[in-house]
Amino acid sequence: MDRKNLIVGQSGGPTAVINSSLYGIVKGGRDQAEVDRIYGMVNGIEGFLKGQVMDFEVALPGEDLETLKYTPGAYLGSCRHKLPENLDDLAYKQIFASFHDMNIGYFVYIGGNDSMDTVSKLSRYGERIGSDVRILGIPKTIDNDLVKTDHTPGYGSAARYVASTVREIVIDANVYEKKSVTIIEIMGRHAGWLTAASVLARKYSGDNPLLVYLPEKAFDTEKFLMDVEHAFDKNCNVVVCVSEGIRDEKGTFICEYENDVCTDNFGHKMLTGCGKYLENLVRSRLQVKVRSVELNVNQRCSTAMLSAADQKEAMEAGAFGVKAAVQGETGKMVSFIRDSEKDEYVLNYGLEDVNEICNKEKPVPVSWIAESGNDMTDDFIQYAMPLIQGVVSLPLDDNGLPLFAYRK
Amino acid sequence: MDRKNLIVGQSGGPTAVINSSLYGIVKGGRDQAEVDRIYGMVNGIEGFLKGQVMDFEVALPGEDLETLKYTPGAYLGSCRHKLPENLDDLAYKQIFASFHDMNIGYFVYIGGNDSMDTVSKLSRYGERIGSDVRILGIPKTIDNDLVKTDHTPGYGSAARYVASTVREIVIDANVYEKKSVTIIEIMGRHAGWLTAASVLARKYSGDNPLLVYLPEKAFDTEKFLMDVEHAFDKNCNVVVCVSEGIRDEKGTFICEYENDVCTDNFGHKMLTGCGKYLENLVRSRLQVKVRSVELNVNQRCSTAMLSAADQKEAMEAGAFGVKAAVQGETGKMVSFIRDSEKDEYVLNYGLEDVNEICNKEKPVPVSWIAESGNDMTDDFIQYAMPLIQGVVSLPLDDNGLPLFAYRK
Repeated sequence: MDRKNLIVGQSGGPTAVINSSLYGIVKGGRDQAEVDRIYGMVNGIEGFLKGQVMDFEVALPGEDLETLKYTPGAYLGSCRHKLPENLDDLAYKQIFASFHDMNIGYFVYIGGNDSMDTVSKLSRYGERIGSDVRILGIPKTIDNDLVKTDHTPGYGSAARYVASTVREIVIDANVYEKKSVTIIEIMGRHAGWLTAASVLARKYSGDNPLLVYLPEKAFDTEKFLMDVEHAFDKNCNVVVCVSEGIRDEKGTFICEYENDVCTDNFGHKMLTGCGKYLENLVRSRLQVKVRSVELNVNQRCSTAMLSAADQKEAMEAGAFGVKAAVQGETGKMVSFIRDSEKDEYVLNYGLEDVNEICNKEKPVPVSWIAESGNDMTDDFIQYAMPLIQGVVSLPLDDNGLPLFAYRK
Repeated sequence: MDRKNLIVGQSGGPTAVINSSLYGIVKGGRDQAEVDRIYGMVNGIEGFLKGQVMDFEVALPGEDLETLKYTPGAYLGSCRHKLPENLDDLAYKQIFASFHDMNIGYFVYIGGNDSMDTVSKLSRYGERIGSDVRILGIPKTIDNDLVKTDHTPGYGSAARYVASTVREIVIDANVYEKKSVTIIEIMGRHAGWLTAASVLARKYSGDNPLLVYLPEKAFDTEKFLMDVEHAFDKNCNVVVCVSEGIRDEKGTFICEYENDVCTDNFGHKMLTGCGKYLENLVRSRLQVKVRSVELNVNQRCSTAMLSAADQKEAMEAGAFGVKAAVQGETGKMVSFIRDSEKDEYVLNYGLEDVNEICNKEKPVPVSWIAESGNDMTDDFIQYAMPLIQGVVSLPLDDNGLPLFAYRK
């Protein structure tokens, strides 16, 4: 048998489980007789073009690989590098020459829709030159905005983090009797999937967050202020969750309004989020106590709230991709298919043409947003609930803190 | 035996373990033959003055009490209410009349230095009128700034959250090869204990956070910029941790400089933190990629990073306080005494005169701050490390999220 080497890269923003997929790929590769050595691109395709490569047998031999399952960030480093549109560009020749020199038979790339553009271009170039290198994509994004897949690895853990953290902030907000508004700004510039997950925080009917706003529906500040006033009828402490990407009817991001007027000491426009903008709006117009909280980068790198379901699927997606590559598939992305016949949650894996996925975005269906425009329907809750299930207990280091894998 | 009732209240900002202390008090009270019914003040002394009282036997009978151990926020609700300086004020008469009506023999108040002021005043008034109600304080604050105690319940869990979250953000920051600065703003307006805990995040010598600034040393923005430039020699991704309360030589909070120039749409000064200010400073002066992250309210309400040591001590402090009250102590706060004779960490409980604690603050010793002014010494690490140890596994509810206790 002609054994070939496998190379894997990571691209785009990190998630809590991007390294779980990496684990699945390396472990899956080690399990395949057809796969010889397993290499990693350091800093994705951009690093590869500069010759940055590592060998998993040296860096993470045997059991050392296990720590990857719990490590946030991108173990291999990442990049945001768009390959040239023109396939005649020398970059492609260089990449495939390196593949040849390294005896690469399998290239697996973990990323979101921008990264799938790299998978698409490399597979098209490979096809053009008759290369036998199989090019596969493994989905990854906390934004859950990839088409042709039920959901994406990374979303479940980020959604679990959002739901759990919002629940804690709600409890914190209820401590005082005085009327108050807490605005929580959640990641998602174009799609509101993560903000939608905040409704999973509710413990009882009428619990906070009482108001939830997604970019999928035009945001009206006057209606928002009325919504807040009405919400005070239910609870003197109102918690509002907003996507960072909410925009008005004209399509202008709400956060841009703040930047219009707010200039820092150095004469630069200060970049703040829509949460801060709404905080000021509420303080000025409703004269109540108000604060805003930006969940920020922890949404994508918190391991304390890893969803066991998400972690498992991320690993399985990686292993499935390697198996598909060995079986001859190329130019595909691993997809998630939910078995809608079953009552309980059952997930199967499939393959989709990467050309139909890259550079596209999947918004939250408008039918899953309540007619009021400030809540989610039960359909969304049924969709999202299985994705945030299960606790992962983290191994600890000498400091008593979670033990992560570090690249030397 | 003349059995008396016990009443407990919570005051000031919440912590992850303020309800663990509440658990210790109620459980401890149930274990004492001298204690009959156990009541809670709803929204502290302020709520009590309005007659807001609950009965633990009704709200959390038997095993139901257990959930309190894992619940953030303040189960009883909180207040920020300063009792009158003049002990002749009618409020005192009213409070002790209510104590009498409710057959209260023991009053236990969980809080920080402001709340200990309430304990001080009530015990002084009690002494003046010859009351036999025993007045005890249980320490609580993530700020760790109470005098006469080795540390405070709440600090260990907040410090564990800070160390663990900073470690995750450091890993996230290392993903790209491009020079970058990440500024993490950590709670602590007057004392830098929590910011200091960020150094526990380091995994190896030379690991981030490379720079740490506390309010205990005057902050110099020009020196800060030089520190950042030098830090680039060690790592192209520099992570900086700053206390929200850093101030310059004149004593002006750094965050106030931003507010001088930054006005929102409504003509109000926009309140931002020093992290945002330093982000803009670095962008303007060093022309590098920079972001700031405010850890915000999660520092005090995250249960995912509960320190088992902190939780245990918070519970034991509560039970110790009740026992002391039953034994006749009054006007005291439970204190933590570290056994310095022992190599391993051993904690004992004691009592201190509450009058010597209230309204005072304990800063981080300047000798624990490195001479460079941007790091901590090993003495601090040895002090803090035992306080963040141990994982608490949280019971889950039907949503698969942490199960908390809710007051009906």
